Amino acid sequence: MTTNSTTAGQNGAVLDARQELRLRESIGRQTLLTTLGVRIVSLAAGRVVLELPFREDLCQQNGFVHAGAITTLADSACGYAAMSLQPADRDILTVEFKVNLMSPAVGQHFRATATVARSGRNLTVCTAEVVADDSTRTIALMQATLMAVPTS
Amino acid sequence: MTTNSTTAGQNGAVLDARQELRLRESIGRQTLLTTLGVRIVSLAAGRVVLELPFREDLCQQNGFVHAGAITTLADSACGYAAMSLQPADRDILTVEFKVNLMSPAVGQHFRATATVARSGRNLTVCTAEVVADDSTRTIALMQATLMAVPTS
Amino acid sequence: MTTNSTTAGQNGAVLDARQELRLRESIGRQTLLTTLGVRIVSLAAGRVVLELPFREDLCQQNGFVHAGAITTLADSACGYAAMSLQPADRDILTVEFKVNLMSPAVGQHFRATATVARSGRNLTVCTAEVVADDSTRTIALMQATLMAVPTS
Amino acid sequence: MTTNSTTAGQNGAVLDARQELRLRESIGRQTLLTTLGVRIVSLAAGRVVLELPFREDLCQQNGFVHAGAITTLADSACGYAAMSLQPADRDILTVEFKVNLMSPAVGQHFRATATVARSGRNLTVCTAEVVADDSTRTIALMQATLMAVPTS
Repeated sequence: MTTNSTTAGQNGAVLDARQELRLRESIGRQTLLTTLGVRIVSLAAGRVVLELPFREDLCQQNGFVHAGAITTLADSACGYAAMSLQPADRDILTVEFKVNLMSPAVGQHFRATATVARSGRNLTVCTAEVVADDSTRTIALMQATLMAVPTS
Repeated sequence: MTTNSTTAGQNGAVLDARQELRLRESIGRQTLLTTLGVRIVSLAAGRVVLELPFREDLCQQNGFVHAGAITTLADSACGYAAMSLQPADRDILTVEFKVNLMSPAVGQHFRATATVARSGRNLTVCTAEVVADDSTRTIALMQATLMAVPTS
Repeated sequence: MTTNSTTAGQNGAVLDARQELRLRESIGRQTLLTTLGVRIVSLAAGRVVLELPFREDLCQQNGFVHAGAITTLADSACGYAAMSLQPADRDILTVEFKVNLMSPAVGQHFRATATVARSGRNLTVCTAEVVADDSTRTIALMQATLMAVPTS
Repeated sequence: MTTNSTTAGQNGAVLDARQELRLRESIGRQTLLTTLGVRIVSLAAGRVVLELPFREDLCQQNGFVHAGAITTLADSACGYAAMSLQPADRDILTVEFKVNLMSPAVGQHFRATATVARSGRNLTVCTAEVVADDSTRTIALMQATLMAVPTS
């Protein structure tokens, strides 16, 4: 596995078994993701895909999926993309992110693909794109800064 | 009620009864807010306060409330602060926001106060601060751009 | 030329002569770009590349090119990428942007490539990447929202 | 002087003479600020005010001051507000910022007031507001993340 690469050249490489297990366990501990119904699509080095199926109890006032649910999906994908390039004794916290909501979140499921743009020892920068269903429409675009901290 | 003010001087003025009802009805239609347990603290012209009580099913991997839930709270407060200054035939959509997560979301409840920095006919800029419990610690800071659209 | 496309599929297509002239004239009127020494590398539909050569009078306290100069470069590239997909009677204003400064701006020249992620009648979303010299190091990453307005 | 405060309670306190000198020397080394004509209005602990007088060679295509110049002003104010709360052996780099351009930058001078929202050992969060002339109109609003590094 690529650890602490400063370029993003290796994004997409297969994770070793221990790193994949570490990510899956951490995702399993995020109770909000379970509450919202977020599922893992794929976990690779520097690239993580998560999915949120539509549910009527996750909407805003017009029946679209709420920006907050879409943002949670994208932020979580960024967090695990960042963590995938960190050693086992480093956890990830979100410092900040910015998200553009580009189209109403209409569809049966929403998929966030997060990619590491720069992985440093302390700070990681990721981008994420959220698409609906057949992936031809971008729902949201995120740019995020994350911080590695010692595992607590 | 102040409509489409371009300064923020009137923030905090009492809403007229119809505008307050309109906001409460819209908040009531946001099923994600019900799912997360978000409550209205106060609605005024250009200033909205919403609250999220702690729940174990809204957390991230370390037991803090998830950045996605805090962001949903802040984004919703910004949306209704923006809507409070729009006429009855205009709804609000989020264009984009940026949020800094400044302290772990530890506490019994989290309160987002959103304030309109600029209300235009099309675009509104809001800021929001999220604090925990006794309000001495800032959990998150948001700066958001919202768009008024004809009520659908 | 693709006007008001809602997807970014056509990014990179050749601009027609009138549109290219319109962009060059507008860039020529931006006195700050002349002051900083910004040059046009290429103008295409939905994709604009601008370049800033290093100068000692554009630096911050450690002798790197100032974040403000790098940001001006990236913001201008986003603005013209957005304008390239608008009809001749529409000008572009920046609503907001977010930029991550990822590496110190060390090098002989800096190149910003801006791409339209979504072009709407009113709002356009762009991303831009700034690289130094041989393009293997990302200096900055921008995500921007722009607004089309009637030409004044 | 308040060093590494985690709240913003002391913003505005007088800087000790050595810290003020350190900031003035650093500002003096930023050649871009000299090129643009940026002036110091006031330096206090956690609050810095900088000013940019209008010049015709700092404009965008319509004769307003360019967003890039306004952003440079706000970013620099944030940087020195952050540095004002750091010990003498720590310098400040900008990690990222987001800025909303809220009104055209029309006026004789532009003033950015930056305030520290949270000062940590590694990361600082600041906000800045830029106003024109008589301060009744907000030109821009920034939210920024900065990083303390050992003085080089």
